[in-house]
Amino acid sequence: MRVKGQAYRSICLAADGIGIEVIDQTQLPFHFQVVRLESLEEAVGAICRMLVRGAPLIGATAAYGMCLGLRQSSCTQALEEMARRLMGCRPTAVNLRWAVERMLGCLRPLPEEQRLAAAYGEAGRICEEDVAANEAIGRWGLALIEERWREKPSGEPVHILTHCNAGWLATVDWGTALAPVYAAAAAGIPVHVWVDETRPRNQGARLTAWELAAAGIPHHLLVDNAGGHLMQHGLIDLCIVGADRVTAGGDVCNKIGTYLKALAARDNRVPFYVALPGSTVDWTVDEGLTEIPIEERGMEEVLGIQGEDESGSIRTVAIAPLGTPAVNPAFDVTPARLVSGLITERGICRASREGLLGLYPEQGG
Amino acid sequence: MRVKGQAYRSICLAADGIGIEVIDQTQLPFHFQVVRLESLEEAVGAICRMLVRGAPLIGATAAYGMCLGLRQSSCTQALEEMARRLMGCRPTAVNLRWAVERMLGCLRPLPEEQRLAAAYGEAGRICEEDVAANEAIGRWGLALIEERWREKPSGEPVHILTHCNAGWLATVDWGTALAPVYAAAAAGIPVHVWVDETRPRNQGARLTAWELAAAGIPHHLLVDNAGGHLMQHGLIDLCIVGADRVTAGGDVCNKIGTYLKALAARDNRVPFYVALPGSTVDWTVDEGLTEIPIEERGMEEVLGIQGEDESGSIRTVAIAPLGTPAVNPAFDVTPARLVSGLITERGICRASREGLLGLYPEQGG
Repeated sequence: MRVKGQAYRSICLAADGIGIEVIDQTQLPFHFQVVRLESLEEAVGAICRMLVRGAPLIGATAAYGMCLGLRQSSCTQALEEMARRLMGCRPTAVNLRWAVERMLGCLRPLPEEQRLAAAYGEAGRICEEDVAANEAIGRWGLALIEERWREKPSGEPVHILTHCNAGWLATVDWGTALAPVYAAAAAGIPVHVWVDETRPRNQGARLTAWELAAAGIPHHLLVDNAGGHLMQHGLIDLCIVGADRVTAGGDVCNKIGTYLKALAARDNRVPFYVALPGSTVDWTVDEGLTEIPIEERGMEEVLGIQGEDESGSIRTVAIAPLGTPAVNPAFDVTPARLVSGLITERGICRASREGLLGLYPEQGG
Repeated sequence: MRVKGQAYRSICLAADGIGIEVIDQTQLPFHFQVVRLESLEEAVGAICRMLVRGAPLIGATAAYGMCLGLRQSSCTQALEEMARRLMGCRPTAVNLRWAVERMLGCLRPLPEEQRLAAAYGEAGRICEEDVAANEAIGRWGLALIEERWREKPSGEPVHILTHCNAGWLATVDWGTALAPVYAAAAAGIPVHVWVDETRPRNQGARLTAWELAAAGIPHHLLVDNAGGHLMQHGLIDLCIVGADRVTAGGDVCNKIGTYLKALAARDNRVPFYVALPGSTVDWTVDEGLTEIPIEERGMEEVLGIQGEDESGSIRTVAIAPLGTPAVNPAFDVTPARLVSGLITERGICRASREGLLGLYPEQGG
């Protein structure tokens, strides 16, 4: 996507073919800063400190993290150790495990001296495939949006609610939930996005609002509490969110609060779709509520909020009495029964084992 | 309630019998500051700028605001004019209209020279009745909490979720939703409160957490997004919220986001109760979704957050890109079908016309 006229991806190989460039997303929307990662440590740090976030981007960063690690040592023991370290960074998004296992599957059989070059090749393919998958998600989702648009009075935009950030910043490019929005806008279909703030880290306010503004897509920010009210008043035509992990049974693990919006969508007959590449499906897990580990993050994310003060400095202010205890589960699970459909790179399917196997038959049996 | 050992009410007549003392709730939890109101203007300002908030407290402040206005002029025209000004301050909470109409009903028939003294008398009665109503709500709600407690394994606390602040700060004393919590704690029943942050103004983080800490009630703060997840995992035994207006049909208008929690409660079979004094029932309205005006507040409340910086100064930080448009509906309506029951000063009833008329038969026919 373009930022001030220049094309960017959220992650790319530096011109020297060694370092990895990512956007420091903890600084957005206040500063747009590209950071170079040069070692496994730095890749681990970028994932853990959330310079990069979003399930597909975490996966891509982990893949390149292995390349950086292999520059130090390419023996099998080192390979397994870096895989363990990367997979331990964040527990919920399955793309992290998926990417690392794919890298291991490619690299393990190779002689040590071939591993480094092969790793860069495979990480590059993971990125290119992610971009292609998201473009395809965009095309499938565009059809959905167009359908809603044709039902509306002439000239009215399709109002789409999204939660958190599943835009190009969450992937290598295009995004998952936002790919259909960008595709619709490109196709001349008027769209307007309701952007959930997405406490506690405010990825909606900070990243989605920034992405949409950069792309010239009309949008409004709202607090996470307000989406149900808007649906009750017919102001939302469609919900599209991303996912950190989707079970083989179609349960959707995504940013905390997604479940509440899915409930409101059902109560108001608003279609609720989840956009994801195949790499986000965890075929080893069927039941989301009991089988997906939910990351519990630090309570400082709840007790304070980071923003820009009058002087342009980024600072954190305390929003609760000193000493208040807090809990901070980072994700929740939306049961498949609340999901209208899954938008994947292979098409749209029902959120069920049958639906998913229809698109990914190679996972059956 | 007590603050650092001293007894306070959220509003009271000053020792000189003229001024009205309120706590500036925009400064909590960072500063505890009592402010003296001396004129109608100041009372209007306190309501509009939300130094006072919470349906019952807004009503009490408006009642005393009329006393202050009568000190300027006690002619009928002035009386009607001050009633109009006060009622225009905030559109959603019905206690404002209720209190002003009650004052008018008392004062209109009186000769001008008797109005001032009568006004102070009636405003004082409104406050005393609110305190008594909340104590009664506490007793009825205590029975509910005790019932849940008896179902639990021995020694485990009853986990209660509340949204926004419906504690003593929202009323003259005791609170509505929190009155049962305080009553349970006083009765030796172990309780633990999950405090919804309540964006955008963070009354949960700022006021409820502060109240509960002052009262020594165990609690945890959570973002508004997290309540559904906690219910899915069996961590919430009971929801109790307050109300800004309840229709004759039992629909509940309360702080934005209440509806989402009610949906989650139903989906997880968690009892969802609403605590309110009779003055919060709007007998003129049946259907909440279409008939209650929802206050739309300024978008700066969504785009910025106020908190305390490292140096102890209260400041607002921007949390979204400059120029982001936002919407800010302050309340939503929870349909009666999602409400397990209404806890009033006269007992607990179903959220329905029949239920309410059973407790308030004088409103029938």
